[in-house]
Amino acid sequence: MLPKLNVFLPYFWLVWSDDLLTEREFTTLRQFIRMQAWLIADEKKSLSQLIDSANPPSRETLVQWKTKIGETLSGKPRIKTLFELALAMANNESAVKKSKADFVQLEQTLGLLGEESLAVFRSAYQTHTDNLKTIYRFDPAKMSALLDADQADTIGKVKQALSRPAFKYETSRDLVIYREKVLNWCKLLAKENLGNKAYPKTYGGGADMAAYFAVMETLSYHDLSLVIKFGVQFGLWGMSVQLLGTAKHHQKYLNDIGKMKLIGCFAMTETRHGSNVKGLETTATYHHKTRTFIIDTPNLGAQKEYIGNAAQHGRMATVFAKLIIDGSDYGVNVFIVPLRDEHGNSLKGVKIGDCGLKMGLNGVDNGTIQFHKVTIPYDNMLDKFARIDESGKFESDIPSDNRRFFTMLGTLVGGRIGIPRSALSAAKTGLAIAIRYGDTRRQFGPEGGSEIPILNYRIHQRRLLIPLAGTYAHHFALRYLTNRFLKRSESDVKEIEALAAGMKAYTTWFTRDTLQECREACGGKGYLSENRIDALKNDTEIYTTFEGDNTVLMLLVAKNRLAEFRKLYGQMGASDMMGYIWDKARTAIIEKNPIATRSADSEHLLDSEFHLQALRYREHHLLESAGQRLKRLIDEGLDPYDAFNVAQHQMLAVAQGYLDRTGVEQFQLAIKRTKDKKCRGVLEQLCRLHALALIEKNSGWYLEAGYMEGVKSKAIRKMVNQLCWDIRPDALPLVDAFAIPDQCLAAPIAFS
Amino acid sequence: MLPKLNVFLPYFWLVWSDDLLTEREFTTLRQFIRMQAWLIADEKKSLSQLIDSANPPSRETLVQWKTKIGETLSGKPRIKTLFELALAMANNESAVKKSKADFVQLEQTLGLLGEESLAVFRSAYQTHTDNLKTIYRFDPAKMSALLDADQADTIGKVKQALSRPAFKYETSRDLVIYREKVLNWCKLLAKENLGNKAYPKTYGGGADMAAYFAVMETLSYHDLSLVIKFGVQFGLWGMSVQLLGTAKHHQKYLNDIGKMKLIGCFAMTETRHGSNVKGLETTATYHHKTRTFIIDTPNLGAQKEYIGNAAQHGRMATVFAKLIIDGSDYGVNVFIVPLRDEHGNSLKGVKIGDCGLKMGLNGVDNGTIQFHKVTIPYDNMLDKFARIDESGKFESDIPSDNRRFFTMLGTLVGGRIGIPRSALSAAKTGLAIAIRYGDTRRQFGPEGGSEIPILNYRIHQRRLLIPLAGTYAHHFALRYLTNRFLKRSESDVKEIEALAAGMKAYTTWFTRDTLQECREACGGKGYLSENRIDALKNDTEIYTTFEGDNTVLMLLVAKNRLAEFRKLYGQMGASDMMGYIWDKARTAIIEKNPIATRSADSEHLLDSEFHLQALRYREHHLLESAGQRLKRLIDEGLDPYDAFNVAQHQMLAVAQGYLDRTGVEQFQLAIKRTKDKKCRGVLEQLCRLHALALIEKNSGWYLEAGYMEGVKSKAIRKMVNQLCWDIRPDALPLVDAFAIPDQCLAAPIAFS
Repeated sequence: MLPKLNVFLPYFWLVWSDDLLTEREFTTLRQFIRMQAWLIADEKKSLSQLIDSANPPSRETLVQWKTKIGETLSGKPRIKTLFELALAMANNESAVKKSKADFVQLEQTLGLLGEESLAVFRSAYQTHTDNLKTIYRFDPAKMSALLDADQADTIGKVKQALSRPAFKYETSRDLVIYREKVLNWCKLLAKENLGNKAYPKTYGGGADMAAYFAVMETLSYHDLSLVIKFGVQFGLWGMSVQLLGTAKHHQKYLNDIGKMKLIGCFAMTETRHGSNVKGLETTATYHHKTRTFIIDTPNLGAQKEYIGNAAQHGRMATVFAKLIIDGSDYGVNVFIVPLRDEHGNSLKGVKIGDCGLKMGLNGVDNGTIQFHKVTIPYDNMLDKFARIDESGKFESDIPSDNRRFFTMLGTLVGGRIGIPRSALSAAKTGLAIAIRYGDTRRQFGPEGGSEIPILNYRIHQRRLLIPLAGTYAHHFALRYLTNRFLKRSESDVKEIEALAAGMKAYTTWFTRDTLQECREACGGKGYLSENRIDALKNDTEIYTTFEGDNTVLMLLVAKNRLAEFRKLYGQMGASDMMGYIWDKARTAIIEKNPIATRSADSEHLLDSEFHLQALRYREHHLLESAGQRLKRLIDEGLDPYDAFNVAQHQMLAVAQGYLDRTGVEQFQLAIKRTKDKKCRGVLEQLCRLHALALIEKNSGWYLEAGYMEGVKSKAIRKMVNQLCWDIRPDALPLVDAFAIPDQCLAAPIAFS
Repeated sequence: MLPKLNVFLPYFWLVWSDDLLTEREFTTLRQFIRMQAWLIADEKKSLSQLIDSANPPSRETLVQWKTKIGETLSGKPRIKTLFELALAMANNESAVKKSKADFVQLEQTLGLLGEESLAVFRSAYQTHTDNLKTIYRFDPAKMSALLDADQADTIGKVKQALSRPAFKYETSRDLVIYREKVLNWCKLLAKENLGNKAYPKTYGGGADMAAYFAVMETLSYHDLSLVIKFGVQFGLWGMSVQLLGTAKHHQKYLNDIGKMKLIGCFAMTETRHGSNVKGLETTATYHHKTRTFIIDTPNLGAQKEYIGNAAQHGRMATVFAKLIIDGSDYGVNVFIVPLRDEHGNSLKGVKIGDCGLKMGLNGVDNGTIQFHKVTIPYDNMLDKFARIDESGKFESDIPSDNRRFFTMLGTLVGGRIGIPRSALSAAKTGLAIAIRYGDTRRQFGPEGGSEIPILNYRIHQRRLLIPLAGTYAHHFALRYLTNRFLKRSESDVKEIEALAAGMKAYTTWFTRDTLQECREACGGKGYLSENRIDALKNDTEIYTTFEGDNTVLMLLVAKNRLAEFRKLYGQMGASDMMGYIWDKARTAIIEKNPIATRSADSEHLLDSEFHLQALRYREHHLLESAGQRLKRLIDEGLDPYDAFNVAQHQMLAVAQGYLDRTGVEQFQLAIKRTKDKKCRGVLEQLCRLHALALIEKNSGWYLEAGYMEGVKSKAIRKMVNQLCWDIRPDALPLVDAFAIPDQCLAAPIAFS
C-alpha cells in the first residue's frame, strides 16, 4: 500500500472496531473514498475492498493496522487529533494535508470525536482521573475528638465494650437464637451501668442524660436490634416510669429496670391508632371502692401493636389508656400493667401476639397486647401529671386533656433525639464501608491504562461525598439539638420539641437516602449480607416511621413554625412592622439585585455568608408564603381543615427549609469552634459542599423566587462537582474519623 | 359572670388547651385585659384570675366552658371567625363589638388563625377532604385487557398457575428449604412449557419471545426469587446456548434446558470485573493437538461471582473467558463448561462457593466458581460468532475483538427487557398493596368529625399517585421497547440496545423509589414481612445493579445518544444545517416567547402537545449542550477521558431526558390507540399527571433554560396537586386493573 493510502487506516480500524458504528458508516466511508480527487481509480477500488462488510479483513489484518498506528502515534507526542494521526500515517503527504477539511467533515459524519477516538490507539498514559488518590491532610484522631467532644469518655467505653468477643455479630437467622443474643447483649451493657445512665443516682443511675444519648449513638455502630431493644428497655419503658411516674414508682422499679432485672414495654401505639395516638381506645376504668383500674381492649383495632419486648421478654408495660371515671372520659393517662409472671407466662386477661418476621430489627421481640379486663392497683397509675384524689376525683395541674396529653408526650421527646443520632451512626457505617470500597475497587480506565478507583468517578463522588458532607452537618445539628434539650426551659420547650420532631424526620430520611446510595455504590458486593449494608438499610428503614411518622412530624414542625411566625407578626406594633417590612425590602434589594442574582465567581459561591443567607431567605420566604396561602384559602371560604390539606405539600417545604438552614448554621458554628487548622480546613470544604448541594437541590425554588438566575445555578452545579473532586482525597480520612470499631464495621469489602 | 365577659371564654379555653401556646401567651392575654377600657377593675381582676398559670381552673371548668361555647356555635351557622363566636358569647354586647380590631390583633399576637381555631369548637362536620372516596368510573377488566394486549392468553395462563396451592409462598427462612421450593416451582412451570417459550419449536419451544417476556412479567407478581431463578435457567443459560451457539449445541442441550432437566448457569461476572466485563481474566487456552480448551481462573479476583444456580443446582455453565491460542489473546469468547455430575458433586478442578445470605432473592443459589485447569472438548465453544478452524486458526466474521464482544452481548439484550418488566410488576404489587391500604386506613380528621382515609391526604396522594401514573407510563414504554426489539433489524439494533439499557436503568430505579414510598405509606404495617413490601423491596434492590449497573448503563445510553447526535450534525449539508438552525430558532421563538413561558392556564398546562414539546425540548437541549461541553473541554486541552469524567453528571441528564420523553410519548400513543372512552379518559388524566410531575421535577432546569418562568412552574406544581386529587377516586380501580392474583398479593393489609 502506498504511504499516502495509510491515511485511511485509523478510520478503517475505527469503523471495524467501534461498537457504535453501523452499516451506514461503511457506506459513508466508501462514498468519501469515491469522491477524493487525489486518488486514482485503482487506489479507490483497493481501499473500498478493505471496508466491504460482506468481506471483512481478517482479525490479523486489524491487529497489524493497530500495531502500525500505535507505533506512529508513540513516536509523535504532539499529535492531538485523529486527522493529525492519519496525516502522520501518510508521511505528511501534501495531497492529504490539503484534504484536511474533508477528513474533519468525514469524522463528523461518522460521529467520531477526533480527540476521543485517538485515545484508543495510545498505549498506557496518565490522566487527571487516574492521579486522584487518598491523602492524609489532617489527623483523623483529632477529628474524632472534635466529633465526640465532651462525650469522648463514654463513647470510648462503649466502643471498647463492643469490641469484645461477646459482641461478635450473631449470624443465625433463627428468631429465637437471635432475640436471645440481643437480650444478652443488653444485659451485658446493663451490668456496666450503661443502660441507667440517665436515671437518678439514688436508683443506681448516672443522672447524665447526655451520656445516655452518647451510649445510644455509639451502640448504633453495632447491630441495630441491640440499640432498639436497649432503647425500649432503658428509654421508652424506664424513662416513661421515670418521667411520668413519681417517687413511689421510681423507688419500686427504677433500680431493677436499670439493671435489666425488670424488663418492660412501652405500650402506646394501637393497631388503629398510630400517628393519631390521641385517638387510642384502650380504657382504664377506675373503681373507687376497690381503688383499682380495669384495663381493657374494647376491640381488635385497639390492641397494642409493634410493642418492643412484648412478644417474649417483657414482664410489665407502661400502657397508654383513656381514663374513665364514673362513665366520663378523662383523656389518655398512663398505667403500669404487669404482663407476665417470673416464669414468662402471660398473666390472666393479657393476650400477647408476636409480630413475627419484620423487614429488619428481627432481634427485637415486637408483639401485640390485648387486655381483657385486667385489674391493676391504684398505685400503678403514673401520676406525675394527673392523679385521682382520696375522694376518687380526677386532679391535675394541667386542666386541659389535650394539653396534658401533649405535655406527657413532650416529656418523652428524648426518643426523638436518640433515634436520629442512632440513624446517623448507621449512615456513618454505610459511608465508611462504601468509601473504603470505592477507594480500592477499580473498574474501567483510559484505553491501555490501568483501571481507576471508582471513587475517582465524578458520579461516584456525588453519590458518596455529598452524603458524607451531609453526615457531618447532621452530626453537628444533632449535637446542637441535644444541648438545647439538656438546657431546656419552659419558655423554649415547644421550640425544642418541634426541632426534635424535625431532626428526627430530617436525619432518618437522610440516612435512608445515604444507605441507598451506599448499597448501589457497592454494587453486587453491597447486596451480600456479609457486607452489612443489607442490615443497616433494613434495620433503619422503620426509623422513618416509629417515634412518629416522618411526614406527620414534618407537618407538625410546619404548624409550629407557622404559629411562631404568626405570633411574631402579631406582637409587632405598627412601627416594628414597618421596620420588618423595610428589612425585608432591603434584603430583597440586596439579594435580588442583578449582581447578586447573577454573581457566579468562586469567592462568592464559596462564601459561608452567602450560603446561610440563601438558606435563611428560603426558610423565611416559604414560611411567609405558606402562611399567606392558608389565610387566602380560608378567606376564600375553604374550611381550615381542607385548607391545610391543600397546602400540605407547601407545609413540608416549610419544615424542610427550617431544617436545611439549621443544619448549615450549626455546621458553620461548629467550624468556628474548631481550633485545629487542618481539621478546620477540611470541615470548611465539607460545609461548602453540603450548603451548595442543598441550594442546588432547591435550584428550582431559587430560580422561581428570582433569588438567582440561571447563570448562577449553573455555576453552583459546577462548583458542587468541583468540591466533590477536591474533597475526594480526604474521603477516607473523613470516615476514619468516625472511628468505628473494626468488629462493628466487619464488612469484608471495608478491609480489602 | 356578666354576659359581656363571656367574650373571653373562647380565648381562655384556647390558651389553656392549645399545645402550642406557652407562658408568654398567658402574659399577653393578661396585658390585653388590663388595657380594655370597657372593663372595670373588678372585672379585670376576676378575669385575670382565670388565666393564672400558677392557679389553673379545674378540668371541669374547662369542660363547662367548652360546652357553653359549643352550644353557642351550634346555634349560629353563620359564625365564621373566632371573634364572631366570642361576640356571640357576649350576646353581641356593643362594647365588645367596638373592640373588634383589638381582638383581631390579640388573635394575631397569640398566633391564632381565627377560622382554624374555631374548628375545635364545632361538632362533627363534613369537609371536602372527608368526601373524597373510591368510585368505579371505568371497568378495570377493560383496562386489564388493554394492558395485557396481545399477551392476554399467556398472562392468564401464568396467573392461573400462580394461583394454585403449590404456589403458596414459602415461609421458611431456611435457605435449603427455600431454594428447594423455588427450584420446584421452576420445574412446575417448565412442565407447562412456560420456560422454553422462546426456544425453536424443533427443540420443544414455542418460538415466541414475546410470550417469554410476558411470562417473566407475570411471574414477577409472585416471589421474585422464582422469576430470577427462572430467568437464569431459561434466559441467561438457555438463551446464551441458543443465541451464541449453533445447531450442534441446540440439538444437544436446548430440549433438556427447556424441560429443566439440565440446569445451568451464566458465568460472566468475575469478582474483579463486573461492570467492565471486557476486562475479565478467566482464560480458555486452546490445544490443537487434543482439540480441547483448558479453562482456568488465574487469580482469586478472576473467579466467577454472584452466579445464579451455581451454589447448588447448576450442572453446567456458559463461561465467558479470554480465548488464548498459541499464546495470543483472541478476546472474550464463550464456552460450555460442566460443573457437576448427576449426583450434584463438583467435577474435578471446579471449585464452587456459596454467596450465602443476600439482602434478597435468597431463594436463588448464587455462588462463586473457580476453574483449575478444567479441560473441555472442542465442541463446547459456542461458535456462532467465532470459531477455530480445522487447522487450529481463529475465524470470525467480525474481525474486531471489541466489536465481536459487544455483538455477542448485544444478542443477550433481551435480559435488559425482561428485568425492567419484572421490576415493574413488583412496583405494581407494591402500589396495589399501599393504595388498597390507603383507601381503608383512617387517621386524623377534622375536630369532632370521623377520621379520614389516609389516601385523602394530599401528601399521601403525591406519594402514591404520581408513581401510579409513572407505572402506567413505564408499562407502555416497556411494551414499546419489547415491540421494537422483536422487530429489530441491523440498522436499528444499536438504538434498541441503547433503549433497552436505558429502560432497564430507568424502570428499576423507578421501582426502587416507588417501593420505598409504598413502604413508608404503609407505616408500621409496611414493615411487617407478612405485608410483602419487605420482600418486594429487598428482592428488587439488586435489579439496579445486575444486568448492568444502572449508572454505567445510563452513561452508555448517553454516549450512544451523543454519537447519534454527532452523526446527525455531521451528515447535514450546509443547507440542511441552515434548516435545522432555523427550525431550532423557530422553536425557541415559539417556546420562549413571553406568552408561552408564562402561560399558566389550565387548558395549556393539560395539553399533551405542551407536555411532549417540553420534554423534547429538554432532551435536545441537554444532548446538544453536553456535546458542546465535551468538545469545549477537549479543545481546551483536557484529555477526552478526563473530559467525559468531568461531564458525567451532565451525561446522566442526557439519558434521563431521552427516557423521560420516550415514556410520555409512548403513553400518549397508547392513549391514542385506546378505544374505550372511559379507560381513555382516566389514562389521559394519568398521563397528564405523569408528564407534569416530570416537568415539575425538572423545573430547576426549565427555569434555568428560560423555557418557563416562575409563574408557570408554580402553576404546574398546583396542577400536579390538583390532578392527584382528581385521580384519587380512580386509584383503587387503577390498581385493580393490574389483576394481580390474590394468592400473589397476599398482604393482609390489602384485604382489610
